[in-house]
Amino acid sequence: MPVPDLVKSDLDPAIAARLKRNADGLVAAVVREHGTGDVLMMAWMDDEALHRTLTTGRATYWSRSRQEYWVKGATSGHVQIVKGVVLDCDGDALLVTVEQVGAACHTGTHTCFTDTLPVTTTEAGATEATAGAAASEVAL
Amino acid sequence: MPVPDLVKSDLDPAIAARLKRNADGLVAAVVREHGTGDVLMMAWMDDEALHRTLTTGRATYWSRSRQEYWVKGATSGHVQIVKGVVLDCDGDALLVTVEQVGAACHTGTHTCFTDTLPVTTTEAGATEATAGAAASEVAL
Repeated sequence: MPVPDLVKSDLDPAIAARLKRNADGLVAAVVREHGTGDVLMMAWMDDEALHRTLTTGRATYWSRSRQEYWVKGATSGHVQIVKGVVLDCDGDALLVTVEQVGAACHTGTHTCFTDTLPVTTTEAGATEATAGAAASEVAL
Repeated sequence: MPVPDLVKSDLDPAIAARLKRNADGLVAAVVREHGTGDVLMMAWMDDEALHRTLTTGRATYWSRSRQEYWVKGATSGHVQIVKGVVLDCDGDALLVTVEQVGAACHTGTHTCFTDTLPVTTTEAGATEATAGAAASEVAL
């Protein structure tokens, strides 16, 4: 699938050159709360959303469902004041540290991560199970 | 783009029904360190990788570059012992809390997020800039 033309952006070319975008021209943004370290949500940014996040101090994403820029909290008031942005080793994910006003999640909860899944093993059992998993990986 | 056939998986159907997979059949996995809360890396899981993560107690991903299951640390010894897995509100991202043995990043650093980007605004300036950004959003 060809990479679509990027939206013209004022993002610093030196930063843009370090991004590894997906087929939609986006990088993932993991959002963490300043102070508590809580992981609040995951969203997506194109070059221009990253530029706005870095220069306005308000976390700004690309809404895949609405296909438009999304200043977090612009309608709800639950803005995110940007405290720091760090890119990962392969350039396809950002860690955005924010001061969160109100609830991060549109459902009204502090974080979007609320549906706990069952981990059905103990650490002792895990050692044994992993040996099998590692062996099966070789066979793939 | 059609969604590819999913790998046959033993994942609990009640969990599988809550996942919202991307076009490649994957959900994002944000990995956080137990105790410190440090965000270590981002990777991807299909149903079977999630099943193995939940049942073996070792974080297991789908390697997009190698197109195979990847038990984190199987070769490096830098395994991740799974302490908890939480799904987000729209089912397309997982928060995986792990006890990390050794370095999480293949570059040898504690976390993959090491490339700090410049945030070029102050909180005071941000308020003014955001008013403009919110206004321009309406015009999009």
